[in-house]
Amino acid sequence: MFKKEEDFIENLNKIRRINTSFVIANKTIKTARNGKNYIEFSLTDKTGEITARMFPNRDAEEIYDDIEQKSIYNIMGNVDEFPRNSRNFSIKIDSFQKLAEDEYDLDDYTRTSLKDQNQLIREISTTIKEMKDPYLKDLLKAFFCDKEFAKQFYQSPSAKIHHHNYLGGLLEHTVGVLLICKTSCEIFPQLDQDLLYTGAILHDIGKLKSYDYDLVSIDISNEGKLLDHLFISCDMVNEKIRDNKLEIPEDRKIQLLHIMLSHHGDVQNGWGSPVSPQTPEAVALHHADNLDAKVKGIMQKR
Amino acid sequence: MFKKEEDFIENLNKIRRINTSFVIANKTIKTARNGKNYIEFSLTDKTGEITARMFPNRDAEEIYDDIEQKSIYNIMGNVDEFPRNSRNFSIKIDSFQKLAEDEYDLDDYTRTSLKDQNQLIREISTTIKEMKDPYLKDLLKAFFCDKEFAKQFYQSPSAKIHHHNYLGGLLEHTVGVLLICKTSCEIFPQLDQDLLYTGAILHDIGKLKSYDYDLVSIDISNEGKLLDHLFISCDMVNEKIRDNKLEIPEDRKIQLLHIMLSHHGDVQNGWGSPVSPQTPEAVALHHADNLDAKVKGIMQKR
Amino acid sequence: MFKKEEDFIENLNKIRRINTSFVIANKTIKTARNGKNYIEFSLTDKTGEITARMFPNRDAEEIYDDIEQKSIYNIMGNVDEFPRNSRNFSIKIDSFQKLAEDEYDLDDYTRTSLKDQNQLIREISTTIKEMKDPYLKDLLKAFFCDKEFAKQFYQSPSAKIHHHNYLGGLLEHTVGVLLICKTSCEIFPQLDQDLLYTGAILHDIGKLKSYDYDLVSIDISNEGKLLDHLFISCDMVNEKIRDNKLEIPEDRKIQLLHIMLSHHGDVQNGWGSPVSPQTPEAVALHHADNLDAKVKGIMQKR
Amino acid sequence: MFKKEEDFIENLNKIRRINTSFVIANKTIKTARNGKNYIEFSLTDKTGEITARMFPNRDAEEIYDDIEQKSIYNIMGNVDEFPRNSRNFSIKIDSFQKLAEDEYDLDDYTRTSLKDQNQLIREISTTIKEMKDPYLKDLLKAFFCDKEFAKQFYQSPSAKIHHHNYLGGLLEHTVGVLLICKTSCEIFPQLDQDLLYTGAILHDIGKLKSYDYDLVSIDISNEGKLLDHLFISCDMVNEKIRDNKLEIPEDRKIQLLHIMLSHHGDVQNGWGSPVSPQTPEAVALHHADNLDAKVKGIMQKR
Amino acid sequence: MFKKEEDFIENLNKIRRINTSFVIANKTIKTARNGKNYIEFSLTDKTGEITARMFPNRDAEEIYDDIEQKSIYNIMGNVDEFPRNSRNFSIKIDSFQKLAEDEYDLDDYTRTSLKDQNQLIREISTTIKEMKDPYLKDLLKAFFCDKEFAKQFYQSPSAKIHHHNYLGGLLEHTVGVLLICKTSCEIFPQLDQDLLYTGAILHDIGKLKSYDYDLVSIDISNEGKLLDHLFISCDMVNEKIRDNKLEIPEDRKIQLLHIMLSHHGDVQNGWGSPVSPQTPEAVALHHADNLDAKVKGIMQKR
Amino acid sequence: MFKKEEDFIENLNKIRRINTSFVIANKTIKTARNGKNYIEFSLTDKTGEITARMFPNRDAEEIYDDIEQKSIYNIMGNVDEFPRNSRNFSIKIDSFQKLAEDEYDLDDYTRTSLKDQNQLIREISTTIKEMKDPYLKDLLKAFFCDKEFAKQFYQSPSAKIHHHNYLGGLLEHTVGVLLICKTSCEIFPQLDQDLLYTGAILHDIGKLKSYDYDLVSIDISNEGKLLDHLFISCDMVNEKIRDNKLEIPEDRKIQLLHIMLSHHGDVQNGWGSPVSPQTPEAVALHHADNLDAKVKGIMQKR
Repeated sequence: MFKKEEDFIENLNKIRRINTSFVIANKTIKTARNGKNYIEFSLTDKTGEITARMFPNRDAEEIYDDIEQKSIYNIMGNVDEFPRNSRNFSIKIDSFQKLAEDEYDLDDYTRTSLKDQNQLIREISTTIKEMKDPYLKDLLKAFFCDKEFAKQFYQSPSAKIHHHNYLGGLLEHTVGVLLICKTSCEIFPQLDQDLLYTGAILHDIGKLKSYDYDLVSIDISNEGKLLDHLFISCDMVNEKIRDNKLEIPEDRKIQLLHIMLSHHGDVQNGWGSPVSPQTPEAVALHHADNLDAKVKGIMQKR
Repeated sequence: MFKKEEDFIENLNKIRRINTSFVIANKTIKTARNGKNYIEFSLTDKTGEITARMFPNRDAEEIYDDIEQKSIYNIMGNVDEFPRNSRNFSIKIDSFQKLAEDEYDLDDYTRTSLKDQNQLIREISTTIKEMKDPYLKDLLKAFFCDKEFAKQFYQSPSAKIHHHNYLGGLLEHTVGVLLICKTSCEIFPQLDQDLLYTGAILHDIGKLKSYDYDLVSIDISNEGKLLDHLFISCDMVNEKIRDNKLEIPEDRKIQLLHIMLSHHGDVQNGWGSPVSPQTPEAVALHHADNLDAKVKGIMQKR
Repeated sequence: MFKKEEDFIENLNKIRRINTSFVIANKTIKTARNGKNYIEFSLTDKTGEITARMFPNRDAEEIYDDIEQKSIYNIMGNVDEFPRNSRNFSIKIDSFQKLAEDEYDLDDYTRTSLKDQNQLIREISTTIKEMKDPYLKDLLKAFFCDKEFAKQFYQSPSAKIHHHNYLGGLLEHTVGVLLICKTSCEIFPQLDQDLLYTGAILHDIGKLKSYDYDLVSIDISNEGKLLDHLFISCDMVNEKIRDNKLEIPEDRKIQLLHIMLSHHGDVQNGWGSPVSPQTPEAVALHHADNLDAKVKGIMQKR
Repeated sequence: MFKKEEDFIENLNKIRRINTSFVIANKTIKTARNGKNYIEFSLTDKTGEITARMFPNRDAEEIYDDIEQKSIYNIMGNVDEFPRNSRNFSIKIDSFQKLAEDEYDLDDYTRTSLKDQNQLIREISTTIKEMKDPYLKDLLKAFFCDKEFAKQFYQSPSAKIHHHNYLGGLLEHTVGVLLICKTSCEIFPQLDQDLLYTGAILHDIGKLKSYDYDLVSIDISNEGKLLDHLFISCDMVNEKIRDNKLEIPEDRKIQLLHIMLSHHGDVQNGWGSPVSPQTPEAVALHHADNLDAKVKGIMQKR
Repeated sequence: MFKKEEDFIENLNKIRRINTSFVIANKTIKTARNGKNYIEFSLTDKTGEITARMFPNRDAEEIYDDIEQKSIYNIMGNVDEFPRNSRNFSIKIDSFQKLAEDEYDLDDYTRTSLKDQNQLIREISTTIKEMKDPYLKDLLKAFFCDKEFAKQFYQSPSAKIHHHNYLGGLLEHTVGVLLICKTSCEIFPQLDQDLLYTGAILHDIGKLKSYDYDLVSIDISNEGKLLDHLFISCDMVNEKIRDNKLEIPEDRKIQLLHIMLSHHGDVQNGWGSPVSPQTPEAVALHHADNLDAKVKGIMQKR
Repeated sequence: MFKKEEDFIENLNKIRRINTSFVIANKTIKTARNGKNYIEFSLTDKTGEITARMFPNRDAEEIYDDIEQKSIYNIMGNVDEFPRNSRNFSIKIDSFQKLAEDEYDLDDYTRTSLKDQNQLIREISTTIKEMKDPYLKDLLKAFFCDKEFAKQFYQSPSAKIHHHNYLGGLLEHTVGVLLICKTSCEIFPQLDQDLLYTGAILHDIGKLKSYDYDLVSIDISNEGKLLDHLFISCDMVNEKIRDNKLEIPEDRKIQLLHIMLSHHGDVQNGWGSPVSPQTPEAVALHHADNLDAKVKGIMQKR
């Protein structure tokens, strides 16, 4: 059963009655100042996120306990706008009911990149195919021929709350960075193209282990919190080389790890790089990453 | 009379006798610690810069006074390397002689962009031609149909000592930034293309007034030192609009001035923007400028 | 009909019943945690600002929609203090009624400088009269003989929420800075008096375009948000010179623009100057501005 | 024997022979790169400082050892300018001879404030006389009736290399700050005048113990280096109160110490205040101090 | 009457009825959004702090006014957990009753160091006893033989909200720093042991005057707010020396004051030192203090 | 042939003739300002470093070319002091002669830790032996039973120019940090001892690959420059676990890597940590490392 176009969150822009379904992404119990409890929800579908509140007559705790977070529910209630003309909408829930798996189409609830995934994947595979450096090409093939890796790479979000925080966000961001790197090589033909493109493709792969996500939610993993993706990405490269016994010249490997490790810019900026970019390719990758992330960031805020 | 290939500064890489010509870009008199004076020179040709020293027998002051800075001289002496194997070369001058205008080809001495100037100009003119916003298009045409402006724009350096510090550097940098902006519009089709491209083309025009340069030298002008190019660029836009009585909607003008004025990034970074980038186009221009400048910067250091 | 002394906001300092009038500067609808809506107001008169809340029996949205923001209303209700002895007062509104124009005296509601405006204006006009530099004198006269400019200059606030955020605040701040500059010239007679005083008088004129204000409210204008007053002030000087065809030596103009443009201090501090103060007059103006603003700032917080 | 007007350092601005006297403020032995030693001097008189060099024929070490630093010598040699037209003058010494005490007038060699000392002292004594707060007035009198303190206060420099680094510099700076504070009280009549003026007069008294100086030189004392003047100034106030058993209300004392201790501004700026200014008087004193110091600083650099 | 083990705040970890006693550390009146008032409390006992709320039927203001802050009350009500499974507990109060002094044991309510106080005191006294420098030993004895000082020193908290914010916190922190300094002297035997240990013991004594505390609450004193403990600690050393006419070599005193005054690290960090650590002992004390404070800080957050 | 006690660099403290041997650590050719060349040397022995200069009569380049850097030479010449009484000594070389391997005792020239190496090693091995966590114990044993690793670990310097920049410096620093961590565990018994000690022992092992050193010189390796020791240390742990197939719980490994990766402190400080310390052990290790490094640093400067 598909959701109706008008019931998607991005279209909830007038005061009216609704009867449709959402993911309950989050639930919190709150005490009203009259001493009664009510429940606050964060509801999501593929188009966004909206706040909802329920003021139950019977015991709020009991209702609260029954709700399965990250499941799909049918919701009845009202779309409200506070303050008037603020374009700030929320939902007051009257009642809800959990849906069985055959009662909804999961695609309606999954927040995902709006770009054409196949085209993004093609950009990466073409880049790998045209690479001349045999060692870097082998390394990339070792990653992308690993079907489990490739699948995760195409699905992973790039953040929990910052830029590209949705399924496919990592792929979308990676291709954005790659395209800017390609233009950089047009402008500066002296750049080591294969090295820069390899760095662009692999620079954020540690995010695969930095988030615990499923189709309807994203959380930072323990590993992501304690080690962060800069280290994890480089470690994944080293592990891949060791596990697949790839023959890559030591110096080449260090150059690749360097541009990945320094892609957050100068150490003294305090943005998390443990070494400052020291080669033209490292400088280029840092600024390409920054451009794609910051422009996306300001656009998502709007 | 052309300089020989082997006599260009970038090729002075072994100890040997020379007899060729350079611009004397700078002269300084220094007292040796034995109480005698000698003269230190900075010599340039189109391929770079080299230090030279002369230890005259007769009075150094007199010789010093006779030298016309920023003129072209024939130099006889030795290329030395100190310390040995350091790849650090300088010249010990035995004698020199000022050349008449017909004794050299000025092109040998002018440090200039190595890019194909026509292609760069074409990139800009095509961009203007394809623009749809009539106001921005008119503004750009008002600038580039002004032959004096266009000539200066194509010749101006982009800096005295930082990135793109040579004739044509401004044009080269501007096109670099423009290309990155074009890729950004590919990645983010929501960006206001015409606004962003206009900002990219005009963002550094204040540099035309920030430098006093001729074919063989670059200095910062008084105006450049006291007002800097961010303000001057915006003032030139305002002046052009007033002088040519261009009809551009107030709001459109403010948006253009905003992305130009904020192109050094967030105010609190202390890089000179008097306002922080607040629109997606402003963020994109700042990062495109930064990418092109920083990659060029590290390449020129090598 | 004048407001009674005891009913001005600065005198609402005990729990009691009131029946008097205020500007409704702001209204917001909020959902109480029992699911009901109430309205929160920001009320102002010439002595300050106070928060008020109304818990209507009938539909809050309807009442909310009827209220005309920035108009003057008669309010009936209670002054409350929460927590007790906190000196933190607010109003619980029972009912209100819009007043007709002949039912109030606008002066009771306008937040304005408490200084003697005529004396402040005299300080500026005397300073201009005594100036010896004919070019700077002409420039100042061109501004202040423009009646529209002068009227705005005398009325404009200097900020929305920071120091001097009330009508006449710009004039008051400008004279404060000017007086400190005069003492600075006593201490340091080498300072270029006319240049420094001209800079002091004009340094913040861009604020005229940075705020949209009327007698009862102040907002930041789009131009103020995207270009900020440093740039706008300098642009207004350039525009005045061009429009009035004033003959001011180029070098003199640059020096004036320099001290205006750098009056937020060193670029690397990140306070918004696009150039650092490089002349004694620029250093003096920056610190005079800072002194007047910061002392006012801490006094207004009390 | 007075120095001739043309022989004062500020007038040594052409290449010529000289035969006059200076303080030898500093001497250093240096090895010329031909292996020979020469001696470099810093010479001073009341108008400034100049570098000199001597290239002796006989053993430089022996000559060096004989020179008494901080004594007055007659010098014969040449004023040179390197590079030509640089306005950068130094002296090449041929011979020198120590002068007996009756052969010179010490006033010619003492770098000292150019302001009228009596007028500066009068500014301070009038301020004290007009003070109404009996406790602060007593405290100031306890300091300035102490003849030893007063004498030192009138003579002390305010710095070794920064602003006001000459005899009487502390008095000159103190009065500068005081005048700005007086203007601040005109602008902001709510300021606690007596508190602010007392802070202004005493804020830098710790400098009396922070420098070891005599008529011809200034050095930082061990106490100045390890404790700095902020702490020492406050400690001197506490010591004076205890020694003279002054009856000052605890709260008043803390307020005075606060504005002295915080006069370098906000703690987080890292300029040395151990507490941030938290009262209007503390904010005013900080900015008055900063204004006087920074304007003087840029003027002394010229 | 002792509190039962299960009724201590650290054990209130399930939803249940309670009837036990707490300190009412803080009370605030708040308006519920239905227009009614309720009271919010901060309750403490020796094991921690918990929030409570009361929604009275009769007039909240009256009840509020009757409550004596910082007194001990018997509380009846419910422990609640919001949201469920959040481990975030609070109390909903039904009724309360002030206890007479003989109805409770004050020890149950006093938040205090969990370390063995005698052992901590012994560490300090042994350190003093073994000291060889007679001047520093005398100084320490002058402090610790002063019974009033010693009593306060053993009881004082070390902060209001940061690390060691409970009775005895200063002693516990001081001994922590002292132990790290002892290990530092093992590693670096060149350190001046007696100087470093004296600095460690005295570095925070100014906190005795920086807090107003009693057995159940801690506030920052006016002196603490306006002068802060760095200055006060050093002033107490100077006062003790003057009052007791201790004979300590000037240089030794300055070295001690230096390591105390600089123990917040480099001036430019903006952490409040008015001088940067310039001796090995000053560097060691700063880092020992930092280690003890930061490790405690992160542990208290858990 | 041993060097005489008086001929060690730390004892070269008066002007005299010498005839003894040093490592020529560095040679540079310089042009004297009279146009002649001379050679500048950096000489070392186990007690330190001294500058020397030679002014040859015959061609300096030829002599320069013959000198084998990092070899041991007998030097004849003079110890000089410039300026007199500055305690700043250098050597003027008359002649020198390369020594054969049997003409010197290498121990005289090797800059090495002055601590008892066996005792330091014992501290580490005892710590490992007493560890209870079987996984961390196995990991440490895997490292230290690897004889090649252990040998390098005991010999490696800890820096090129900062603290502990000599052979054995890594071991000395590691034990210093370990001892401070042990004291920290005494103060805070809740710390996870085994985790903290393992982190302390392994935190800088990446320095083994960050320096190219032999008995007489230290350089930063390419790997050290491009990846830095924080990353390399963690990578060595991961590699050891994979190569030795150690069974360590994933969570335990992440905690260990976290405290190693964050030991340069908060990311935003810009000191190179890619993640901020987030556990008590991470905070403790960071501050222990900082204490040992900074105290050593200021001591080595003296």
